[in-house]
Amino acid sequence: MAEPAFLPELATQVVVPVAAVVGIAFAVLQWVLVSKVKLSPEPRRGDGSTAKSGAGASEYLIEEEEGLNEHNVVVKCAEIQNAISEGATSFLFTEYKYVGLFMGIFAVLIFLFLGSVEGFSTKSQPCHYSKGKTCKPALANALFSTIAFVLGAVTSLVSGFLGMKIATYANARTTLEARKGVGKAFITAFRSGAVMGFLLAASGLFVLYIAINLFGIYYGDDWEGLYEAITGYGLGGSSMALFGRVGGGIYTKAADVGADLVGKVERNIPEDDPRNPAVIADNVGDNVGDIAGMGSDLFGSYAESSCAALVVASISSFGINHEFTPMLYPLLVSSVGIIACLITTLFATDFFEIKAVDEIEPALKKQLIISTAVMTVGIALVSWLGLPYTFTIFNFGAQKTVYNWQLFLCVAVGLWAGLVIGFVTEYYTSNAYSPVQDVADSCRTGAATNVIFGLALGYKSVIIPIFAIAFSIFLSFSLAAMYGVAVAALGMLSTIATGLAIDAYGPISDNAGGIAEMAGMSHRIRERTDALDAAGNTTAAIGKGFAIGSAALVSLALFGAFVSRAEIQTVDVLTPKVFIGLIVGAMLPYWFSAMTMKSVGSAALKMVEEVRRQFNTIPGLMEGTTKPDYATCVKISTDASIKEMIPPGALVMLTPLIVGILFGVETLSGVLAGALVSGVQIAISASNTGGAWDNAKKYIEAGASEHARTLGPKGSDPHKAAVIGDTIGDPLKDTSGPSLNILIKLMAVESLVFAPFFATHGGILFKWL
Amino acid sequence: MAEPAFLPELATQVVVPVAAVVGIAFAVLQWVLVSKVKLSPEPRRGDGSTAKSGAGASEYLIEEEEGLNEHNVVVKCAEIQNAISEGATSFLFTEYKYVGLFMGIFAVLIFLFLGSVEGFSTKSQPCHYSKGKTCKPALANALFSTIAFVLGAVTSLVSGFLGMKIATYANARTTLEARKGVGKAFITAFRSGAVMGFLLAASGLFVLYIAINLFGIYYGDDWEGLYEAITGYGLGGSSMALFGRVGGGIYTKAADVGADLVGKVERNIPEDDPRNPAVIADNVGDNVGDIAGMGSDLFGSYAESSCAALVVASISSFGINHEFTPMLYPLLVSSVGIIACLITTLFATDFFEIKAVDEIEPALKKQLIISTAVMTVGIALVSWLGLPYTFTIFNFGAQKTVYNWQLFLCVAVGLWAGLVIGFVTEYYTSNAYSPVQDVADSCRTGAATNVIFGLALGYKSVIIPIFAIAFSIFLSFSLAAMYGVAVAALGMLSTIATGLAIDAYGPISDNAGGIAEMAGMSHRIRERTDALDAAGNTTAAIGKGFAIGSAALVSLALFGAFVSRAEIQTVDVLTPKVFIGLIVGAMLPYWFSAMTMKSVGSAALKMVEEVRRQFNTIPGLMEGTTKPDYATCVKISTDASIKEMIPPGALVMLTPLIVGILFGVETLSGVLAGALVSGVQIAISASNTGGAWDNAKKYIEAGASEHARTLGPKGSDPHKAAVIGDTIGDPLKDTSGPSLNILIKLMAVESLVFAPFFATHGGILFKWL
Repeated sequence: MAEPAFLPELATQVVVPVAAVVGIAFAVLQWVLVSKVKLSPEPRRGDGSTAKSGAGASEYLIEEEEGLNEHNVVVKCAEIQNAISEGATSFLFTEYKYVGLFMGIFAVLIFLFLGSVEGFSTKSQPCHYSKGKTCKPALANALFSTIAFVLGAVTSLVSGFLGMKIATYANARTTLEARKGVGKAFITAFRSGAVMGFLLAASGLFVLYIAINLFGIYYGDDWEGLYEAITGYGLGGSSMALFGRVGGGIYTKAADVGADLVGKVERNIPEDDPRNPAVIADNVGDNVGDIAGMGSDLFGSYAESSCAALVVASISSFGINHEFTPMLYPLLVSSVGIIACLITTLFATDFFEIKAVDEIEPALKKQLIISTAVMTVGIALVSWLGLPYTFTIFNFGAQKTVYNWQLFLCVAVGLWAGLVIGFVTEYYTSNAYSPVQDVADSCRTGAATNVIFGLALGYKSVIIPIFAIAFSIFLSFSLAAMYGVAVAALGMLSTIATGLAIDAYGPISDNAGGIAEMAGMSHRIRERTDALDAAGNTTAAIGKGFAIGSAALVSLALFGAFVSRAEIQTVDVLTPKVFIGLIVGAMLPYWFSAMTMKSVGSAALKMVEEVRRQFNTIPGLMEGTTKPDYATCVKISTDASIKEMIPPGALVMLTPLIVGILFGVETLSGVLAGALVSGVQIAISASNTGGAWDNAKKYIEAGASEHARTLGPKGSDPHKAAVIGDTIGDPLKDTSGPSLNILIKLMAVESLVFAPFFATHGGILFKWL
Repeated sequence: MAEPAFLPELATQVVVPVAAVVGIAFAVLQWVLVSKVKLSPEPRRGDGSTAKSGAGASEYLIEEEEGLNEHNVVVKCAEIQNAISEGATSFLFTEYKYVGLFMGIFAVLIFLFLGSVEGFSTKSQPCHYSKGKTCKPALANALFSTIAFVLGAVTSLVSGFLGMKIATYANARTTLEARKGVGKAFITAFRSGAVMGFLLAASGLFVLYIAINLFGIYYGDDWEGLYEAITGYGLGGSSMALFGRVGGGIYTKAADVGADLVGKVERNIPEDDPRNPAVIADNVGDNVGDIAGMGSDLFGSYAESSCAALVVASISSFGINHEFTPMLYPLLVSSVGIIACLITTLFATDFFEIKAVDEIEPALKKQLIISTAVMTVGIALVSWLGLPYTFTIFNFGAQKTVYNWQLFLCVAVGLWAGLVIGFVTEYYTSNAYSPVQDVADSCRTGAATNVIFGLALGYKSVIIPIFAIAFSIFLSFSLAAMYGVAVAALGMLSTIATGLAIDAYGPISDNAGGIAEMAGMSHRIRERTDALDAAGNTTAAIGKGFAIGSAALVSLALFGAFVSRAEIQTVDVLTPKVFIGLIVGAMLPYWFSAMTMKSVGSAALKMVEEVRRQFNTIPGLMEGTTKPDYATCVKISTDASIKEMIPPGALVMLTPLIVGILFGVETLSGVLAGALVSGVQIAISASNTGGAWDNAKKYIEAGASEHARTLGPKGSDPHKAAVIGDTIGDPLKDTSGPSLNILIKLMAVESLVFAPFFATHGGILFKWL
């Protein structure tokens, strides 16, 4: 046997929770700094405190003239923020009520199905992998899996909710800071994103750590059972994320599309104009879809990749020999990730300062590079200290010897593949480069060519990310089998705090712009928030790229764990059972997208009718003398999203159950593989196509180059064509695209959780034939 | 050993060529009937002869008033037809020149690669499957594979060319017959489609039959080598088809999109207006893309499914025991198919008569049902007479016993799955049903919702066809392994003559409408041709559905044959080599679509600029007093398609070579499986989305229902939105969508042809690592 890891168990027991607490403390600190921006009209007094947060307080005076009628503007901003926050809170509570019911039923299903594996026997059973030993009864696994599921769901829910609260807290503050300069506004938006990023990463780690230790009290040395039960955490997190993404996505895009179609296209009023009845719903949507949904989503990815790595590790030599530190290697990686991201954040908020709009995107891009570079060192450290020099990994029945430097390579390749995906996404969605400019140019000949070019761009943007994913899979798979793939996923997500920060930054800036418009602030301020927002579109696309890339890796790892657990020897494409699974699995993302796209379309139609009705029947609305009825539009979005999120949610949640029960584990393996390889492509292309259209429109609107000015200004024919593209891209990039990565992960983790049940009771149709 | 088949060798040697000759004779007969419609202005004299072709000659007189200024109209029609035919011929010759060069190089590659397997040795080698026996040298296989490749390419080329000639011969005749009534026009268009259908089906069968017999002179009892070499026929057919589809697809859609964007959208002139400079290019495009391309494509499918079935059969008990009749079972199925389709055709042309526009679609639908029903009996007959009661099939190293009724089920399930796909396609693309009507309705709120609904419709339309394909695969795979899948594909294609007839009918009607408009014929005639054309859009979508469904089946069969030949035991998804192949393979259809869509977009932009230039600079063009410069537009389409067809063509042709040589057969297996399961989905959804948009537009234009009239008329806002959708759909349904099924098939057949080379010299990268 090899020598143990350098880091003793006690050190690990300290490092992980301390890193989590540091992360939470850092989030709180950022929140305190954001809260220094006062939303109550107390001119002058805020001056001293903002000065603490960095240089440039003198700018406040320089731009004082923008603060014309200061008092009213601040009051108005506070009012609007309040309306958005209330709308978002009320929607999320409604959503959680319905989802809670569904999750409750599903929790019962988990308990019943897993409990039935050994006929609800309370007797201990022979272990599955460690032959000869005795493990806890299936009933205990059922109970603890259910508890873990609920825990994951609740953590995900709280993550999304807190994220929304932070974002709505920050948006008006960003608007107010934009009066002082673009740098101030950027820092406020970025800090708020960081609050969310660190809170989620740290609390996800913390809850997982606590759960492992608490479950461990019962499980004792049955690590196999312990980590199998822990997998429920990932399932809970992802299930919640699915409804969050789909429900939030339908909400936000129904409102957005509806508002744009009547406001921008028919009535020729600007985006976020307060006369538009759907404008509050639109801004609420950004917070419930892009913020809460995305927070739940990335938390789910993180939880699943940790669970996948842990469950595979539990049946490796760490698990069998009970080596605590290497067993918790995945958590150590995440712990170091929090510290690495903390250092990275300082580069954006303290070490450098944004002075002009064209420095925003480079600053965000630098975040990616710095976090990746710092984290590479961190991984090397953890791999050296936290792993024995050599150990064995379970590889579908065989054992495989792995060196610690090989595992370092696995994590690192995932991390760097994430960076590659980030940069490719940026290239295809930022209007600083030729792809988006070509799309904008194609608007000359109308909406049709814009759509054709945009779709082609999305398809093309898939190529390099897929090669990057394939390369990481090949390397990590070859070096350390499924454990390698799982830690590669973890590597990609190890900088999640930074990733979430720059991702959340986008909708916060978007909202800030909305508030500026609604509060009737000057054109100069709107220009600043627009610049923040354009960079935010790109970072949102990058965030989605990370989410999709990591989803591919984590699904494969979960899939591998499922196959091991279900005791399948090979997943041979050339058997009828597997092949039909593969082709049907590859179809599922289309089915799912059809549902979500149609939902957005139908809800948007209703919204359009309501907005038109208000413009036509409320006298003085167009002139700005009467207020529109915002509440009805909020209700339309709420009702539509609650009603429409159920069918796609059910499709994803029920497919593994139905396939597993009726057709058995081989067909289910095919379904998972098919959904994975097909879903990744649609997800990437949908997300990038949408991002590109949005920025092509912004490119024409901003008119920053000679070329852009020939296409503009707002209201020109090419601009109208660009608006149509943007509207089509909305459901692609914010509803169906980002939900697809959850589809992939969720089906895999669900199959893994139910694997013991399928292995004993599954495939009744084939048994019966 | 089991008793032999009922049908003796001699009978088979008679039945197959006789069926082929009957098919060709029937095609000639239909051609003669079409040619009775005179294109030279000889009023009255044509009367007597048309009377022969059926009832209703008296209608001629009833509608005489339409023939106002008869002489000029006929002359004009003949002129336009001539221009279209010349343009198409000249393009095809240019295309063939470039493709010929490429094919020549590829033929040399085939010879060199396959010859190198045994180091160009002329010595006989031990057989691959029949252990202990001696087979022909690898060099002979290289030579005969190359010959078969060239033969396939030439047959495909001739098929496409003849199809185009027939279509351009028929289009003006259909226009002239439309003066006499919709029934007359329908019969002319349908007969012309039948000429193409029967000519292709019969000559494909005939050439294959001759090749087998000629190659057999050299090969003697080495059936293994004989049918391995014959596979080159499929590769040749499909390679040609790829360039035909892509080149023709880019040509037709660049012209179509360019013509529509300026003509319909900017200048508000009708489709096919002679003042539009791109109008000739557009009509030429229909013939080189939809007709020649599609002809080559379906011929390729037919050739490949026959080759796949033959190569698998050659290593079954038929091959090993040299039972000629069962060995040629695939050709017998096709022979019976020709006869079944012949009977079916009579139902459309002779047994019933179309009297009103709403009878067109049902008549075409009936063709599908009748051919399927008749063919089911035919298959039963062939399976009973042409197969021994029981035989053994090679199943990846194992032997499997199969009964003749089981093989009947395999062929039948493919045939009926084709019908299901046909009907589902019809449901989603015909404007008689709610899906297209919903899409049309969404045009109320503009182009954006139209596109969102259209995309969702396409995604949704994938579900049932995939289940149908999965079911056929499961049944045929379970009953008779890869041989079952191959004959299921053949079953789906056994009614190819009818399928092609109704498919070719579409573009012919489309052209007929174009000619009517250009010749300035009355509104009533244009209404009739529009009705023919609307039905044609649906049948074109159905034809694509068949092509895609059969491509999925045939690719799987070829893939299976490849795996057997490459001596891989399993294609296990959970090995790194296979998985990276799978995910990269699933990406290829996106890469390919990105190329083709972008090509159409760029070429359309050029076309738009040219058309705008002509409208702006040629005085009197808009008033109709000056003729536009058609030739420049034709040149733009030609140049663009020749230049742009090379990269996507090279992507498809070179991928199997590069992957096989560098990464080896396991990774290549993954690529094939990935491309198959992902490509099928995109192909179906792209083709149906495009078809639906086209018919949503036609639905609004025709205004046949209360609902449709609230959306119209032409030029209304909803109609403009519908035109945008139609334009976006053009490259989806006619360029990238239908090319994807060739991508799937071609990579599979190419891998099979090169399998001996890859098995000995492939995978150098992994060997080197």
